[in-house]
Amino acid sequence: MALLVVGSVAYDGVETPHGKVDRMLGGAGTYISLAASHFAEVKLVGVVGEDFAAEDEQLLADHGVDLEGLEKMPGKTFFWRGAYSHDMNERTTLTTQLNVFADFNPKLPASYQETPYSFLGNIHPNLQRQVRDQIASPRFVGGDTMNFWIEGTPDELAAAIEQWDFILINDSEARLLAGEYNLLSAARKIQEMGPQTVVIKRGEYGAILFRPEGYFIAPGFLLQTVFDPTGAGDSFAGGFMGYLTEQGIESLDDASHAHLRKAMIYGSVMGSFCCERFGVEKLRNLTRDDIERRYREFKAFTEF
Amino acid sequence: MALLVVGSVAYDGVETPHGKVDRMLGGAGTYISLAASHFAEVKLVGVVGEDFAAEDEQLLADHGVDLEGLEKMPGKTFFWRGAYSHDMNERTTLTTQLNVFADFNPKLPASYQETPYSFLGNIHPNLQRQVRDQIASPRFVGGDTMNFWIEGTPDELAAAIEQWDFILINDSEARLLAGEYNLLSAARKIQEMGPQTVVIKRGEYGAILFRPEGYFIAPGFLLQTVFDPTGAGDSFAGGFMGYLTEQGIESLDDASHAHLRKAMIYGSVMGSFCCERFGVEKLRNLTRDDIERRYREFKAFTEF
Repeated sequence: MALLVVGSVAYDGVETPHGKVDRMLGGAGTYISLAASHFAEVKLVGVVGEDFAAEDEQLLADHGVDLEGLEKMPGKTFFWRGAYSHDMNERTTLTTQLNVFADFNPKLPASYQETPYSFLGNIHPNLQRQVRDQIASPRFVGGDTMNFWIEGTPDELAAAIEQWDFILINDSEARLLAGEYNLLSAARKIQEMGPQTVVIKRGEYGAILFRPEGYFIAPGFLLQTVFDPTGAGDSFAGGFMGYLTEQGIESLDDASHAHLRKAMIYGSVMGSFCCERFGVEKLRNLTRDDIERRYREFKAFTEF
Repeated sequence: MALLVVGSVAYDGVETPHGKVDRMLGGAGTYISLAASHFAEVKLVGVVGEDFAAEDEQLLADHGVDLEGLEKMPGKTFFWRGAYSHDMNERTTLTTQLNVFADFNPKLPASYQETPYSFLGNIHPNLQRQVRDQIASPRFVGGDTMNFWIEGTPDELAAAIEQWDFILINDSEARLLAGEYNLLSAARKIQEMGPQTVVIKRGEYGAILFRPEGYFIAPGFLLQTVFDPTGAGDSFAGGFMGYLTEQGIESLDDASHAHLRKAMIYGSVMGSFCCERFGVEKLRNLTRDDIERRYREFKAFTEF
């Protein structure tokens, strides 16, 4: 089974209390794809500039990521630079150069149009909708969004997520989208907007899965050192969708709650690994054994 | 089996976005005792003034709380007034009148001295130590502390907690006490100070149990409405210690990890109930059935 991933492919500069990297592979689409690649075949839709390095393309290819949908445009690849506070709980954006990403107009190659599962990363909701309309007969589709679209293009966003089976969003965005502080109420309001499966990410505190029949809380993994939290939420998305794709779930409504819960844990596992090194470093050489070992750790520290 | 509880018995004034109460029964000793009373016999050590209402004494007595150690002194009962921010995550103290609590010098009645389990609430560490020395042959002893003592009387605090089997503390206090931001490292440092069982409370995000052999994460219960979080941490302590007392655990080192994990969940259950009404209101009429029902809910939303 294959997973369609739409999202940014970028270069990042990151400063954390543990060090500084001037330029490294990043972007939501990259993190989601690499994390999901440990479970399923990924078909990536994105755009890069002429400066996109052959070794970065190779890294994705080595993880079995289908790059037919990764467009190369004249100009430079999206570049973002940010710095984290001492406790890693605050992030300041220092530079955003959209470059070729500013005109990103995702087009699905013919070979992508039958992909059963899709994750629409954080881009303009009209583009998310456009991609959704190009998918022939999806089993389920969902995605992510951010403050910028919630506040700037609420109607377009409402029209996009109305078509989604699931949404994966962080807590402050969920509160903003729903106009509700309480997470139970916020999740219920978001379900009324369309997606019946709502996953709310809470950073170091884990994530919550809301379904009409109940909810499930996945705690955050306690790391000895958080090297770089960039991409942790996207790696969660990759682990979550990767596992569901691997299982070949027919629909989220038919999916036994057990599969969704396991997907939440695999998401948490991938998010936790992501933080242990700068950028995508840790996601590069992970083995399925590493993933399963951490999955068992989650079981060990939550069972009672 | 019985549990000795040392702590403040007070009157509180509380303002939350849901309303305002000018004066109601409160204090850590009260919350801990009422929460623990649903599991075990409680022997309370505290001090009140001449204004302490007969009905409040009756409430404690009705819950089987032994009040021989509740001293009545000339003067007024400790009074605290505070207000919560809209999202309940910040609390501003508006009034603190220590009154008779300023001279609190806990003395154990003879009938208390053989109590097998003790929880030493947040008071001057020298007093905590003095109480500890009056207990004849405890199975285990531990307690709570706060920023005020961590910063103001670090040596006295170190001498007190060196004798403890467990400590129950919130995350910011744990970080301050250990001088470590990372919770894994903070817990390890605190273990080096004495208590091998370290429980770190994280407010709405739950609590973590650290033992030399591993850790356990209990998530916070998702409440539809948080009416008043005052006393939630103390109710957690009451549920945690109440359950261990009920089980008659010989020592925390012998205690199967299963009992400690269950104690963490019973603590979380009592903390969550506490927030659902103003002050001790919800703890008043709770039944064991209510408690067991919520315990099963915790199981349902954490199992995978």
